[in-house]
Amino acid sequence: MTHQFTADLLEKVRAEKPLIHNLTNTVVTNFTANGLLALGASPVMADAVEEAADMASIAGAVVLNIGTLTAAKVEAMILAGKAANEKGIPVLFDPVGAGATPYRTESAKRILKEVKVDVLRGNAGEVAVLCGRAVQVKGVDGGGHEEIRGLAKEASDLLGLTCVITGKEDVVAGKHSYAVQNGSSILTKVTGTGCLLGSVIAAFCAVEKNYAKASAAALSFYGVAAERAAAVSGQEQPGTFAVQFINELHQTARTEVEASGRIEVLQ
Amino acid sequence: MTHQFTADLLEKVRAEKPLIHNLTNTVVTNFTANGLLALGASPVMADAVEEAADMASIAGAVVLNIGTLTAAKVEAMILAGKAANEKGIPVLFDPVGAGATPYRTESAKRILKEVKVDVLRGNAGEVAVLCGRAVQVKGVDGGGHEEIRGLAKEASDLLGLTCVITGKEDVVAGKHSYAVQNGSSILTKVTGTGCLLGSVIAAFCAVEKNYAKASAAALSFYGVAAERAAAVSGQEQPGTFAVQFINELHQTARTEVEASGRIEVLQ
Amino acid sequence: MTHQFTADLLEKVRAEKPLIHNLTNTVVTNFTANGLLALGASPVMADAVEEAADMASIAGAVVLNIGTLTAAKVEAMILAGKAANEKGIPVLFDPVGAGATPYRTESAKRILKEVKVDVLRGNAGEVAVLCGRAVQVKGVDGGGHEEIRGLAKEASDLLGLTCVITGKEDVVAGKHSYAVQNGSSILTKVTGTGCLLGSVIAAFCAVEKNYAKASAAALSFYGVAAERAAAVSGQEQPGTFAVQFINELHQTARTEVEASGRIEVLQ
Repeated sequence: MTHQFTADLLEKVRAEKPLIHNLTNTVVTNFTANGLLALGASPVMADAVEEAADMASIAGAVVLNIGTLTAAKVEAMILAGKAANEKGIPVLFDPVGAGATPYRTESAKRILKEVKVDVLRGNAGEVAVLCGRAVQVKGVDGGGHEEIRGLAKEASDLLGLTCVITGKEDVVAGKHSYAVQNGSSILTKVTGTGCLLGSVIAAFCAVEKNYAKASAAALSFYGVAAERAAAVSGQEQPGTFAVQFINELHQTARTEVEASGRIEVLQ
Repeated sequence: MTHQFTADLLEKVRAEKPLIHNLTNTVVTNFTANGLLALGASPVMADAVEEAADMASIAGAVVLNIGTLTAAKVEAMILAGKAANEKGIPVLFDPVGAGATPYRTESAKRILKEVKVDVLRGNAGEVAVLCGRAVQVKGVDGGGHEEIRGLAKEASDLLGLTCVITGKEDVVAGKHSYAVQNGSSILTKVTGTGCLLGSVIAAFCAVEKNYAKASAAALSFYGVAAERAAAVSGQEQPGTFAVQFINELHQTARTEVEASGRIEVLQ
Repeated sequence: MTHQFTADLLEKVRAEKPLIHNLTNTVVTNFTANGLLALGASPVMADAVEEAADMASIAGAVVLNIGTLTAAKVEAMILAGKAANEKGIPVLFDPVGAGATPYRTESAKRILKEVKVDVLRGNAGEVAVLCGRAVQVKGVDGGGHEEIRGLAKEASDLLGLTCVITGKEDVVAGKHSYAVQNGSSILTKVTGTGCLLGSVIAAFCAVEKNYAKASAAALSFYGVAAERAAAVSGQEQPGTFAVQFINELHQTARTEVEASGRIEVLQ
């Protein structure tokens, strides 16, 4: 996989402007929509059970995020996920806070059971829980974890999907496996940067059927945009960073991605 | 209609600080509230069925926006709309995404049937759907449309309200008809700029009973503020634009509105 | 109480990074989460009845805010509050808009009855309503009120809690009583600054069991951060202020708090 591939995919997203249907949490709706618009995709949010499936069936990709789940939202996610499955539309699942409460863990497992998830994106703690490991999770910020590459491979094999684990190093395990070293630690000081990443990965998957490659490309692009924003804001101004990051999702072009991408192909 | 009228109305909003009750979508609540505060109005959001009517009855204007509708929210909108109707409080309706799913289209039509809407604000695709025309709508971004002036007039006559259609040119059709050429294309890269516009129009209608004139004035003011913000941010920095636009909603004064307003009176 | 105490508590929050569970309104979720992250605390939002209590029981403090209440959210708040009570975890209650509608007033009173609230934070109008006084409240912006110090003391005695009333002067009444003169009037032009303040007070209470002292320290820190942000933005740029305020919640250090804190001890 080359950085030229990342750049090509970025330009494809911007040209095709895929409709990304986000069933996501109430904390990040605005940031997610603005991030997708800045990227060049078309965001939509519709999580009523009456229309979630209809909207999913006309989308380029569907994102399920349980950051602020309710019983009605989980139903809508399952309806949307199944509708996407029927049409071969990629489904990305972000199990925010799995492990933090029994309800969250059970809901995440239920979604994985009822919907064919194509890409799972979480931190190490969340993914470990969904692999049946017992771990300590401190709220939705998740916990540190060793051997993340192994965990991603385990989740990919066990659950039959492309697994993306984000942390100090971002890892993709699926048809191919990658480690991506782009990004900036200030991302952890802005809420919703993980959630928006899920939607950006979904946008890349909307235009590239090799979801592992699409995910690695999205991670690299996203990380390069963050590095560029952090170069403006520094590490101690999270308010400025958040604004500049939206700018960079719009401005970062193929030359920057090709010059600064850091993707390692595993085995 | 003169630009002095726009400036007078802007100052009236800032002096009277009308309470604008927004039953709106979960993506834009924060941006809408900050935009109204920046303008000088008083935002409130209360979409529980238990209190929507009570809050509406003490408001200066009520905004109904179905961007993320649910069955409970639609009920609350109808209760709020009817309470406003009883007291002669202006009701603005934004049928976000009408045409995108059957549920959205039906809910929009139901609101129009049960509530006496004073101002309808949408893009051409949404308004066309509510006029009974069959059109393609790509999610909530809506589609392009020719003959927008005619469509606005058709909707105004058919539905008995002031119709505002926004796009490359903004059009108002009601007691009088106007075309407004203010604005900037970067508005389309920030989520909620259409929704906030609805709330700003509502704020102007709260202080001026000629809703067509009030809408044209609000459109012109809003567009001038956007032009001023875009002059700072440029067209490629949507994060910076969104911040600066809030600044300009606060700072833009009568002299700027008078100097830069572009309102055309139709027939 | 010294400004060194405020600085010590600020550093304790940053070192311990307490998990703050916010059951709050849909307008301010993003701003609240970003403000808490900037401060150095760990935000979580989980208002489903199925998990609100579980999340509360692992939190350092719980915030109940009825800005956009629904029947389901009120249930979740009561479950979360009771779970926190059982474990001695501090509960802060923000009765947004109490007095504006009967449902809001009744819900606020019900929460106060069923949950042992440790800190009540509101404006004068809201607190007066909860003390049984009849007042005019204009939406959630609340009304002016004289003799705020007396009202805070009355609420503290009547309701058996630490009462924080914010306005031109911020007042704390509890085990000890304080008046805090830090802050900036531009805070009133940004939505959610009162709500975020509640969450910041909760973060300070998570690391200091004398809630009156913790509240005064939080108010002073928050006000100093606002003063510093306003020095950058000026009073007429609320968009810029909001961004810079997030920066300052992160950057403001003990030296600034010690130099600029203005806390008056009331007998």
